[in-house]
Amino acid sequence: MLEDWESLIAEMRKGSVRALARLITRIENRESGWMDAMQMIYSMTGKARVIGITGAPGSGKSTLTDRLARELFNRGFKIGIIAVDPSSPFSGGALLGDRLRMKEVSTLHDVFIRSMATRGALGGLNLSARDVVKILDAFGKDVILIETVGVGQDEIEVVKTADMVLVVCVPGMGDGIQAIKAGIMEIADIFIVNKADLDGTDQVVADIRAMLDLSADEISSQTPVLKTIASTGEGVVDLVTMMLVNFEAGRIRVSWSEERAKEEILSLLEKEISRNLQGRWARNGNLTEAVKQVIAHERDPYSIVQEMMMPLLQFNYSDR
Amino acid sequence: MLEDWESLIAEMRKGSVRALARLITRIENRESGWMDAMQMIYSMTGKARVIGITGAPGSGKSTLTDRLARELFNRGFKIGIIAVDPSSPFSGGALLGDRLRMKEVSTLHDVFIRSMATRGALGGLNLSARDVVKILDAFGKDVILIETVGVGQDEIEVVKTADMVLVVCVPGMGDGIQAIKAGIMEIADIFIVNKADLDGTDQVVADIRAMLDLSADEISSQTPVLKTIASTGEGVVDLVTMMLVNFEAGRIRVSWSEERAKEEILSLLEKEISRNLQGRWARNGNLTEAVKQVIAHERDPYSIVQEMMMPLLQFNYSDR
Repeated sequence: MLEDWESLIAEMRKGSVRALARLITRIENRESGWMDAMQMIYSMTGKARVIGITGAPGSGKSTLTDRLARELFNRGFKIGIIAVDPSSPFSGGALLGDRLRMKEVSTLHDVFIRSMATRGALGGLNLSARDVVKILDAFGKDVILIETVGVGQDEIEVVKTADMVLVVCVPGMGDGIQAIKAGIMEIADIFIVNKADLDGTDQVVADIRAMLDLSADEISSQTPVLKTIASTGEGVVDLVTMMLVNFEAGRIRVSWSEERAKEEILSLLEKEISRNLQGRWARNGNLTEAVKQVIAHERDPYSIVQEMMMPLLQFNYSDR
Repeated sequence: MLEDWESLIAEMRKGSVRALARLITRIENRESGWMDAMQMIYSMTGKARVIGITGAPGSGKSTLTDRLARELFNRGFKIGIIAVDPSSPFSGGALLGDRLRMKEVSTLHDVFIRSMATRGALGGLNLSARDVVKILDAFGKDVILIETVGVGQDEIEVVKTADMVLVVCVPGMGDGIQAIKAGIMEIADIFIVNKADLDGTDQVVADIRAMLDLSADEISSQTPVLKTIASTGEGVVDLVTMMLVNFEAGRIRVSWSEERAKEEILSLLEKEISRNLQGRWARNGNLTEAVKQVIAHERDPYSIVQEMMMPLLQFNYSDR
């Protein structure tokens, strides 16, 4: 089994896009041995820069991502794109949509696009996105763009795993500023006012600027606000230059790294313990029995969980 | 400690709103003994009906919730309202907003309003909302309205814990239909087109109807679509009547109950194990050490988690 992983990873490292895609799928599906595989992959990472792109629906994020990818590609970077799509929890992924939206960039040989649904990721969306980032990094991508379709908490958590976050706004959307208030301002490294040929552009820039200046947080008050027109590409060259300069200068929110490492370890642990216990209880029938009791109102979930946790609490394995 | 909880619960059962509010806060904060307290509370539940209200921002959900609460109150029901607010993950709750938005209903004696932020809930938002539902049920509320401010996955998960879900749309919002597509159609028991005095109302009703008719799911094709004008109260009496008739007739998505019980047990377990392990590792310094190693790129999160899980995997406690 491990050999299997090893040969797949070796193929991927040689540049096989097919092996890359299969590897991602197998890791996402948590196939047996996936953690050993990720350990191998992890040792090959550390080079790629990860850029998160978020903003209100309709702000032109996809077009901008497409343009950014092309510009970075033209400057010689190898690009990976992860599109996080809040697709229906009931109907699965949304690959087609992304393919359509990113039709320009997807014709470029060295750009790899992967679509992820916010639901159904076995390891949780944050963890899955981080896995894919690492695999793309190990594959040799220089820059990985993570584009979110929505602005929900799930999506915010995902872009927070990036090294640099772009927040995209547009003129004429009352909700734009509201979305920013909902926790987005604090994560933005660069604000972008897209569709900057529309009326009200300067007002939105001024509003964002004012909000940033009011911030007690010193980093926020220095956050740049750029104008772009993604449909024509206007402003994209300047944006890419600024992004690269910021990376060079280390002007990114590195302060997150400790919090992020901690969060990553703990969510991984939580998910794995849960998967492990679910697997066991599914096999021995305990879960089915517990569910029946709860539905019949014979027992409550709290006492069931307390009983299930008892051995864990007694087993003093934290002191190893 | 347990005595403490017991007297607080007894006070709450006698009708003390102060005890109710304190109880919710202590449960939300996961104070020592909270699971035993929830076990006691659980045995007092099972009467309340839970209604989830969701829809795009700007669709008038708050005003509609206010109207619904008043109408139900007038018919003799005791009402609890849980407002789920996607407030900033950095700045905490948003009580004031809800108080302002629901100023009419909050003057009624028998309506209890609780605001919850989508971030910061120690047990995760779904679990916390379910705890609050149970406490309000034990307090003697007949109907509990859960209103979400956004339409992210978090909010969808919360309304899915309700017995009946109302999805609110408005005319003239292109995003309305889009939001519905993103997993909402499948959870709606009743569709509401609010602000039905606006142009385009009949078109939205027809669009939703067409979408429901196209659905392969038989329940969806029978989902009613109602028009309301929450600001004047028009249509609210009919809506409440339909809700009550549906409850009487059992026309609610009871098929969820098994999935829901399973999900509740497993998320509770997952969160509790995680809290337990985090507490231990925070105390013994293992986590700090692991975080340092990951940041220094000396170790990877996968091998750390595998090592941490080793004793759990060896301890065969699933067979008790």
